[in-house]
Amino acid sequence: MGLLDGTLAGIRPADAAAMALARERQDRLTKPPGSLGVLEDIGVRLAGAAAACPPPMPGPAALAIFAADHGVHAQGVTPWPQEVTAQMVANFLAGGAVANAFAAQVGATVTVVDVGVAADLPAAPGLVSRKIARGTADLSRGPAMTADQAVAAVEAGITVGLDLVARGAGCLLTGDMGIANTTASAALICAFTGSDPERATGAGTGVDAAGLARKVGVVRRALEVNGLTGGAPGPVDPVRVLAAVGGLEHAAIAGFVLAAAASRVPVILDGVIAGAAALAAAALAPDCVGYCVAGHRSAEPGHAVALRHLGLRPLVELDLRLGEGTGALLAYPLVGAAARVLREVATFDSAGVTDKNAAGTEHAGGVIGEGAAGVTGADSAAGAVPPG
Amino acid sequence: MGLLDGTLAGIRPADAAAMALARERQDRLTKPPGSLGVLEDIGVRLAGAAAACPPPMPGPAALAIFAADHGVHAQGVTPWPQEVTAQMVANFLAGGAVANAFAAQVGATVTVVDVGVAADLPAAPGLVSRKIARGTADLSRGPAMTADQAVAAVEAGITVGLDLVARGAGCLLTGDMGIANTTASAALICAFTGSDPERATGAGTGVDAAGLARKVGVVRRALEVNGLTGGAPGPVDPVRVLAAVGGLEHAAIAGFVLAAAASRVPVILDGVIAGAAALAAAALAPDCVGYCVAGHRSAEPGHAVALRHLGLRPLVELDLRLGEGTGALLAYPLVGAAARVLREVATFDSAGVTDKNAAGTEHAGGVIGEGAAGVTGADSAAGAVPPG
Repeated sequence: MGLLDGTLAGIRPADAAAMALARERQDRLTKPPGSLGVLEDIGVRLAGAAAACPPPMPGPAALAIFAADHGVHAQGVTPWPQEVTAQMVANFLAGGAVANAFAAQVGATVTVVDVGVAADLPAAPGLVSRKIARGTADLSRGPAMTADQAVAAVEAGITVGLDLVARGAGCLLTGDMGIANTTASAALICAFTGSDPERATGAGTGVDAAGLARKVGVVRRALEVNGLTGGAPGPVDPVRVLAAVGGLEHAAIAGFVLAAAASRVPVILDGVIAGAAALAAAALAPDCVGYCVAGHRSAEPGHAVALRHLGLRPLVELDLRLGEGTGALLAYPLVGAAARVLREVATFDSAGVTDKNAAGTEHAGGVIGEGAAGVTGADSAAGAVPPG
Repeated sequence: MGLLDGTLAGIRPADAAAMALARERQDRLTKPPGSLGVLEDIGVRLAGAAAACPPPMPGPAALAIFAADHGVHAQGVTPWPQEVTAQMVANFLAGGAVANAFAAQVGATVTVVDVGVAADLPAAPGLVSRKIARGTADLSRGPAMTADQAVAAVEAGITVGLDLVARGAGCLLTGDMGIANTTASAALICAFTGSDPERATGAGTGVDAAGLARKVGVVRRALEVNGLTGGAPGPVDPVRVLAAVGGLEHAAIAGFVLAAAASRVPVILDGVIAGAAALAAAALAPDCVGYCVAGHRSAEPGHAVALRHLGLRPLVELDLRLGEGTGALLAYPLVGAAARVLREVATFDSAGVTDKNAAGTEHAGGVIGEGAAGVTGADSAAGAVPPG
């Protein structure tokens, strides 16, 4: 059994018992029921992923930026020259990109993985070379890659994910770099969800109206030429779809997501590229979605389509459209906060706070000054500091 | 000149020159223009507050939770008994509340300030006693407090804010605790914006439909009995409005916001209570809004009304409705990320990345391996870490 099949065989559903415990615990904590909104669902999801309530803190965080080039660049789908992919890899390695700044902000490590950059990249600290090809073929004229290449890229992503977990990562974050990769993302999203290219294709990092119309046409042609049109999404071979209209980084990110699920570690998805890749991962192993957190919703319209299909609600909605993992990085402290609630917040009982649902039956007296027995793990950074 | 007048006199507009520099810098950084969405505006705002570009990192962060009780509790506007205010103060001091968990997550200190809890609170580390009264009077039957009490509460907030800044805080975060304080918030929002109580009043921490209808009626009565109805918001005496329908914590938070502005330090507003208080602060000193960041949008409908009036877009929208400063705490890493972008991200020039707006005219050759000269401050936490 190859690495892909072995990984798929190792993915278990999120743990229902731990999730039920987490839900029940949320309602006993010293806060009005439901008052943490979406973060309560994230806490439950973390419990399901870890099969433990409270779940462990999701960390340390490891961002992997998968970089690759795209033959469809030749169709004029972006104003950026292709060499920017390699230039930005150098920028990541030098610490100068937005992803580096955000990683510093939230305490994540950054790993850059070359799965298909069209240039030769010199070895450098922080760069992992898993180059499958020097970019894909033009997906609007035929398959972007062979099935073997797609599997190799998926397995590269699995390897990177398993390796980061083996080295201690407790939360994986997806990142990407690849000029023209929003075009491949739109095609993948259409293929996996049945969406129309008009709805799933956006301006990416900056085409104008004419460029967007051309891009929609390219996506439509890609689906036609690869035999991926035709109404509602039926059963598809996910590897064939990846090979037909995906990018090497999409395939690798799909593998990275599978590695997280097989390791019972949460994975925070970045934007539209990750959303498209997660559709492939979900088609390969539906249970992997239980390990995914949608970091943000990008400005690309296809991303919302992908998230709806996956049933994920994004944490950050700030009109980002940068990629690199930036949206996943911004979400990471929010995911940590969701775990902390289940781990550190006192219950009504333990803190001696009157629960409105039980008002009048217990804790009628004041408890000021008694402290909050049973509060665990509230660490020193949260210590109260009086002024003056 | 008293502390309030002196503080108001010390507030300057956000610095237009620094803001212009920040906007211009955003477009030279190695990312597509505008691709960081709302965070680019936050970076500009931080530059304006500090009168410096790049702005300093907004930190360390200091959360102040202002606690007080409300005479309007007698009108049955909430299912929670009033003693929960004091019980939650004890929970904060013991480190058991959600605010403590989130503060630990983001590295903020927590200060609890009693400006009007109805119970006697024993001295405790982390508790600052500035009690103005044992709760307000019932705002639906007359003024909630005297003008002198309102000024004293505003000045208590100013003192706490100035004190935290003097002790090194570089970012202030507002927090609140006060059973029934969403009722006073709705009344303040109506008084300052001209909104109808029906639109500005929400379920708070959990009234049912009948309770909500009663609450709307209470807010309407409060405005009538205090002479604050009558169409569009005209010139009002902000202190009189605070005294009429505010809470002691609202007044204190207004002062806290003024202290931040006078100190040229950004202040992250929490939810609807902070929004209502910020309306009072903005009425006293319109320039203080330039120092405010809206941490989140709470589920309370009045909060959106307040934010629109202030012209602020919230960073986090996760259906939180807890208060305590939880929304401000979650936003804090995002605000830090916005500052880091301006401080640490390389420019197209310095990183040797081809700018699409200048493609073909410079940097035609690859620059892989040259590194990114001129990248400043990318610190070690962001260092690239290869697996295996």
